[in-house]
Amino acid sequence: MPNIIQQAPNIIQQAIDEIPRRPAAGIAEAVRERWDSLTKPRQSLGRLEEYVVKLAELENTAMPRLQRRGLYIFCGDHGITEEGVSAYPSVVTREMVKNFVRGGAAVNVLSRQLGLETRIVDAGVSGPKLDGVIDRRIGPGTRNFLREPAMSPEEAEATVEAGIELGRAAGSEFDIIGIGEMGIGNSTAASALLCVLTGATPDQAAGRGAGLDDAGVARKREVLEEAIALHRVPKGDPLAALSAVGGFEIGMMAGFLVGAAARRLPIVVDGFICGAAFLLARTFYPPMGEHVFFGHRSAEHGQAYLLSAANATPLLDFEMRLGEGTGAALAIAILTSAVSLYREMATFVEASVSDRIPHQE
Amino acid sequence: MPNIIQQAPNIIQQAIDEIPRRPAAGIAEAVRERWDSLTKPRQSLGRLEEYVVKLAELENTAMPRLQRRGLYIFCGDHGITEEGVSAYPSVVTREMVKNFVRGGAAVNVLSRQLGLETRIVDAGVSGPKLDGVIDRRIGPGTRNFLREPAMSPEEAEATVEAGIELGRAAGSEFDIIGIGEMGIGNSTAASALLCVLTGATPDQAAGRGAGLDDAGVARKREVLEEAIALHRVPKGDPLAALSAVGGFEIGMMAGFLVGAAARRLPIVVDGFICGAAFLLARTFYPPMGEHVFFGHRSAEHGQAYLLSAANATPLLDFEMRLGEGTGAALAIAILTSAVSLYREMATFVEASVSDRIPHQE
Repeated sequence: MPNIIQQAPNIIQQAIDEIPRRPAAGIAEAVRERWDSLTKPRQSLGRLEEYVVKLAELENTAMPRLQRRGLYIFCGDHGITEEGVSAYPSVVTREMVKNFVRGGAAVNVLSRQLGLETRIVDAGVSGPKLDGVIDRRIGPGTRNFLREPAMSPEEAEATVEAGIELGRAAGSEFDIIGIGEMGIGNSTAASALLCVLTGATPDQAAGRGAGLDDAGVARKREVLEEAIALHRVPKGDPLAALSAVGGFEIGMMAGFLVGAAARRLPIVVDGFICGAAFLLARTFYPPMGEHVFFGHRSAEHGQAYLLSAANATPLLDFEMRLGEGTGAALAIAILTSAVSLYREMATFVEASVSDRIPHQE
Repeated sequence: MPNIIQQAPNIIQQAIDEIPRRPAAGIAEAVRERWDSLTKPRQSLGRLEEYVVKLAELENTAMPRLQRRGLYIFCGDHGITEEGVSAYPSVVTREMVKNFVRGGAAVNVLSRQLGLETRIVDAGVSGPKLDGVIDRRIGPGTRNFLREPAMSPEEAEATVEAGIELGRAAGSEFDIIGIGEMGIGNSTAASALLCVLTGATPDQAAGRGAGLDDAGVARKREVLEEAIALHRVPKGDPLAALSAVGGFEIGMMAGFLVGAAARRLPIVVDGFICGAAFLLARTFYPPMGEHVFFGHRSAEHGQAYLLSAANATPLLDFEMRLGEGTGAALAIAILTSAVSLYREMATFVEASVSDRIPHQE
């Protein structure tokens, strides 16, 4: 029972049209020039230097800042759990949302430690409304996509639009946002999206999620095979893909990426599920990769294929597979360090340090 | 002109004998049991979980902490710079030490941001004594090891002993220490140590350091060839290697590792130069790897060979090659996050979250 059905089919296109098409000329050059003036061998901060170039272009300033940092956790339930594709019962989505609200989950610990403001978005968790969350419930969980579409076309659109609205609003509050998710069953939905959006096979897409055994993974592959055959999603149609096999929290993250990009807000994507949301967003807007950092190389099986399809090199690799935005949170800390280095290091002139020997130029 | 020559050839052996040989039984199991009780899928924090196991075993407690965090920067000059093996003039060592004292260098920015106390150790910087540093000067820079040993056997021993003393003292002040270094020319000394300690070839060991061009790297390889032939360092003799081709800051870091291990103080090693110090320390004490984390996979050419010889997987890879302890500082932040997760997350019971579906056990 969607509660945000609107007759505004071009809200998504409007947001896409708002995304700035080119960074202002000269910003990348100005950032590299400043890096080279700081007391260190040139380019010796490696990829940290390039991260700051990207942030500067996104923020449209040669002195980017990451003072206001946030983490949005998008939560939703999945009808596909009826098919035995998860190691945990569906009720854990709801229980973990309560854990987020009380501050006991992994992502809460990291957010406190790293100075991130956490927002919990209920995109469609089963059961009564929850306290302490941003309520954008599209429905009480998706339907079982082995039998019928996960959501109606109207719900799919409302899901993306709600994400766009949240992304735009975040743009006026934050300098950077990490996105994460919680939803028992959502690695199956993400795997299905990977298949229909990129042509990945169920073998390439299906992994252990939160801890399936071998029999569970085999079952997940079968479910994916059958679902792909059932829905015959047309290529390049993100709303059709979302409606057929997606999830409320996944579609809302895709919309969030579009809305955030329209407001020049850099986003750090967490792991596999968020990566599927990125693929959806990129189908709406192909240059989406310019607006996004991939936080970490999760250990989920399909992540290798996904990162390759996304042409993405994540910041970190600790073989994590927890979700919630935990990898995004750690990556935001690294980006924050990179920006601090860029803004606070002394220049060769300020510190009276000799630059390179001329014949080495 | 060494200022700490002592007739105590067994100080090093004494420190090695002090290193606890085995972690207390049951600590690793207790840590893994607690990880599995926390509200997340089992092992879903990947390598972060194993880092905490290692820290717990080092600290000899199932509840390790990383509250008091420090970074030691060991500084020294190198006679080998006469041979044109560096992109920067020797005086930069001294200038950068002043930059460290004033707080303008990369490592200062990271230390402030990440809550690390910085100590600067003058192990042998050319010129008058410097303010604001821990004075452990063994000499005014090493000698040119293309012509004669970098230091005398007595200086080599005094260097390691000074490091041991500093490492032991750090053990009563800190919960974890990162080590970094500054010394124009020291990537050539580190490359030479890599060759004589592991059998690496000059091709495998020589890289761009702080920014050599191709002709400079070729010259560095020639210098290494000649130096190895000149000194004929016996295999497995760390003091002979240090004396022949080492550096004061490198030998002092090796001693620091031994002294810290004797005090159960976990150490995070920075990049290539610190890695050479680790190889020295491991020659003194073969299980040294159990006491050390490798901070990052630096972009310096010889680092790939070194990490393989050290059997080490670093935490991070941003293609950095700055030194100073910058990679170690970022890695300490990750370890701190891992320990916070371990100590602060809610358990399944505390948060009333359902654990796995039984048939998935």
